[in-house]
Amino acid sequence: MKRLLCLVLGLCLLASGCVTSPRDTAFQASTIDALLAGVYDGDMSFRSLLKHGDFGIGTFDRLDGEMVLLDGNVYQVKADGKVYEPELCVKTPFATVCQFDADRTIPIEPGSDYETVENLIDTNFPNQNLFYAIKITGHLVSIKTRSVPGQQKPYPPLNEVTKNQPEFDMKNISGTIVGFRCPAYVKGINVPGYHLHFISSDRTRGGHILSLKFAEGKCEVDVLDQYSLALPSNTQEFAETDLSKDRSEELKDVEKR
Amino acid sequence: MKRLLCLVLGLCLLASGCVTSPRDTAFQASTIDALLAGVYDGDMSFRSLLKHGDFGIGTFDRLDGEMVLLDGNVYQVKADGKVYEPELCVKTPFATVCQFDADRTIPIEPGSDYETVENLIDTNFPNQNLFYAIKITGHLVSIKTRSVPGQQKPYPPLNEVTKNQPEFDMKNISGTIVGFRCPAYVKGINVPGYHLHFISSDRTRGGHILSLKFAEGKCEVDVLDQYSLALPSNTQEFAETDLSKDRSEELKDVEKR
Repeated sequence: MKRLLCLVLGLCLLASGCVTSPRDTAFQASTIDALLAGVYDGDMSFRSLLKHGDFGIGTFDRLDGEMVLLDGNVYQVKADGKVYEPELCVKTPFATVCQFDADRTIPIEPGSDYETVENLIDTNFPNQNLFYAIKITGHLVSIKTRSVPGQQKPYPPLNEVTKNQPEFDMKNISGTIVGFRCPAYVKGINVPGYHLHFISSDRTRGGHILSLKFAEGKCEVDVLDQYSLALPSNTQEFAETDLSKDRSEELKDVEKR
Repeated sequence: MKRLLCLVLGLCLLASGCVTSPRDTAFQASTIDALLAGVYDGDMSFRSLLKHGDFGIGTFDRLDGEMVLLDGNVYQVKADGKVYEPELCVKTPFATVCQFDADRTIPIEPGSDYETVENLIDTNFPNQNLFYAIKITGHLVSIKTRSVPGQQKPYPPLNEVTKNQPEFDMKNISGTIVGFRCPAYVKGINVPGYHLHFISSDRTRGGHILSLKFAEGKCEVDVLDQYSLALPSNTQEFAETDLSKDRSEELKDVEKR
């Protein structure tokens, strides 16, 4: 009977405690417009974030680098171009994650660039009103990424920071592309369309992708029909930021400079 | 030991199975712009919706009336002005709910109208970047509501339907106002600002509120820092609707004609 009790308790804890978000959920901490406005203080620890997924992208407290979450491991691509693995007590001011579980795999044609890959996914997933987690594993002829340096208060807006962003050109490199395609209606909350980060197979290079060319690759897509937002309810900066303003132009500047 | 096992099982089921959304979550089925575009086929049953809250507003399959969810009971204010209690297998094409748990109570001044109440809540809750569930219990000098009639395919857009909406003038009536204040950044997804429905104390009258004047009342507010969206992943109409279009003007038309 004691064994049965332990089993029941264990199963219930598994069911209720570990993963807080249901399957097929894009879970997000804070909003992109708060980040654009310079709300860079982390609000959610990676320990908490990992309860909502093992896959995703984002940034770090004080905007200290580009985040890649892959197979439950958090990688921090800093402005020095190197990859770090932060403590889970570190916090994030903005991140989007999910429990990655591919619905379909599509091969990537050799020579494909960023736009070709976008078109390929758009053709295979024409429903523009859901969320898609995108994981591309492959070998790249070339890839250009950027990162952002940690900021000091008073924080400048994000499009000021990215004016002087360090960029990294890599050639003949294997790795994984991690990111999302979000619907147009998340404008102001997340990035409409594609937002992809990179981490090399040896976990030494990476960043926010600016351009790329594939030698070969396979694209796995997880269709997400649930979307969850956790807002920084105790952050004064978030409370005081004007999130009614249209920051689309700032976002365009920041995403693909 | 058997009793202990039952107790543990019961507690675990309570913790994991019954309420799917965490505390302080505004949970939403589909998007307001899909409704504006005429996606009126219900996608989520009220049985499923009630797992996410005991309080909220919305509409019904085929746009058949205004919905008020109060203390876990679903009320359907139809276009005939009467209130029905639908079966839980009935589906909704759009609804917002939460597990209501008041953080604060504010008295309403006699003579207050809709705008006075909005200003009162804005003054008491200046953070415009979170969600607020609003429950006002009181006696009204007067209140004007509307409902919408169930539609037949091909469905007209919502601002066409509300051009001929039945309106209801009530005087000297007690009841509860149920609704939300949403941040500006949910534009396209939910209704930015206030969206309030009414149900009378005797549960015989109600609707989407157009104007009101209080004799007396108390306003309970539940601050929500989590926001969850369930999208109709199997509805062809939802998949094919252009949700990139700005429908703000249509929404203004519809909300306060």
